[in-house]
Amino acid sequence: MEFRCAAVFGLGLIGGSIARDLSAQGVRVLGYDHDAECIRSALAAGSIAATVDPTSDRLGEADVVILALPVSAAPELLEELLPRIDGAQLITDVGSTKATISRAAEHLGLRDRFVGSHPLCGDHRSGWPASRQGLFKKAKVFICPVEERNSAALKLAEDLWTNLGGEPVSISPEAHDTMISWVSHLPQLTATALALTLSEAGFDRSALGPGGLDMTRLAGSSPDVWNGILRENRENALVAVSKMMEQLEAVRVILAESDHEGMDFRLRAARDWTESHIPCNSGSSTTEVNAVAPNQEDT
Amino acid sequence: MEFRCAAVFGLGLIGGSIARDLSAQGVRVLGYDHDAECIRSALAAGSIAATVDPTSDRLGEADVVILALPVSAAPELLEELLPRIDGAQLITDVGSTKATISRAAEHLGLRDRFVGSHPLCGDHRSGWPASRQGLFKKAKVFICPVEERNSAALKLAEDLWTNLGGEPVSISPEAHDTMISWVSHLPQLTATALALTLSEAGFDRSALGPGGLDMTRLAGSSPDVWNGILRENRENALVAVSKMMEQLEAVRVILAESDHEGMDFRLRAARDWTESHIPCNSGSSTTEVNAVAPNQEDT
Repeated sequence: MEFRCAAVFGLGLIGGSIARDLSAQGVRVLGYDHDAECIRSALAAGSIAATVDPTSDRLGEADVVILALPVSAAPELLEELLPRIDGAQLITDVGSTKATISRAAEHLGLRDRFVGSHPLCGDHRSGWPASRQGLFKKAKVFICPVEERNSAALKLAEDLWTNLGGEPVSISPEAHDTMISWVSHLPQLTATALALTLSEAGFDRSALGPGGLDMTRLAGSSPDVWNGILRENRENALVAVSKMMEQLEAVRVILAESDHEGMDFRLRAARDWTESHIPCNSGSSTTEVNAVAPNQEDT
Repeated sequence: MEFRCAAVFGLGLIGGSIARDLSAQGVRVLGYDHDAECIRSALAAGSIAATVDPTSDRLGEADVVILALPVSAAPELLEELLPRIDGAQLITDVGSTKATISRAAEHLGLRDRFVGSHPLCGDHRSGWPASRQGLFKKAKVFICPVEERNSAALKLAEDLWTNLGGEPVSISPEAHDTMISWVSHLPQLTATALALTLSEAGFDRSALGPGGLDMTRLAGSSPDVWNGILRENRENALVAVSKMMEQLEAVRVILAESDHEGMDFRLRAARDWTESHIPCNSGSSTTEVNAVAPNQEDT
């Protein structure tokens, strides 16, 4: 590691896993969580060396500051930390949306040192008990510099995630938020809608086979985390959900009209799409992504 | 096993796995598939002892006849087999819909010996190469007698699936078809629609994280198998898809109106549903299911 000390705010699934991995690699980790029980567990596990709260001078020791809390809470915390993070070479977060936090960082004069991150390794489970070593292994991690020229912090962010086993992909905050509404928000909202449909029809999850279980797993995700994400990225999510409804409406019409050829065409097109899977960047070097439009691919 | 010889027509994922399991348990398995390569593989693997085609007198040896081919092809095959299955104590199938094949069996005078089956252990992969020993372990298997009084064949069907590791659940063919449109067809069609939405937006599967991969796995299912299923159970599937659209429309309106409380309510309701999972019947005895209405639970 290029740094000796990291401060991690929020010891949930993502923050807790970062703390575990960094500690195991010999980095001194300072940790904070609003849940005292969570801090005790992290200390007992040796995953954090000491606690640090937002107003603690100890924060000055940190070379890297990581905000690992819901997206709705991150900008406020960033402002609170500002007076004590002059020594940090990199400030990053792990939220699922990147435009708002990046604008906040810029506003706070952190454009050279803030580089947002979004590791794509979520889990429907959340909190410290769900955290684990190796969570980021082979995970795609979006890295979103506020400006292309903040290359020292960008380099450090890449090193951080590469060392955690992730595969960094550089993308602008705005392009990230458009893309993620399709590949992450839409699957989440679809799982939620499917769960509610089955619930209202009187079925519980025990009625499902392996496929149905796959299709409803995400519905168990944290409501607080997701409400925050969808608040931030509402307009992009709205576009994606509307397009999904068009596809379902097409299926509905096909069923209503007994259009077997139409059904065959759609089943085949969807199947072909799953088989045309192009492996994503599996190296450790950062891939540049300039795509912004929703109809462009993200790698 | 209560029988010595089984004839399996169709050596794909389900039929192939049945042949593998039964052979391993010492049952003499006669197998047939329209694909000669598939028969050669099954013979080479020792999963079938000999081939049998629909017009072969060897069929008379079979105590149990299993139709493991797409639902659209099963009734016709049943009629073709009729002259040579007088000696069979049980004739069953493994299709995902049960009303049509059950009516066909009744029409052919097989009401005492035909008991339809539907093992809930599908896979998005298909064909002989996807078949494997142990596929039915802990899988729920719906068993649908044409009439309640055909107890000898029903008992044999229960024994068959219990011996393969499955957990038989008895349900009428009509109630099965209503229920399965919610717990199986709807997840399938939702995955297909999601895959097409992502495809049209320009993303390939490599852009997805673990959650998105879960949500699109079923889209890789066999188009032929599913077109047959949906043709049979079109009206039930139409109801389920329409209800799913209502849920997605509610989500869309919530996003459009920035209704954070409404979103919170729905995310929580869906999450609570995933956590209220009541384990299904895990014993080997058959559970009676009398539920028919879509708003009743299936176990």
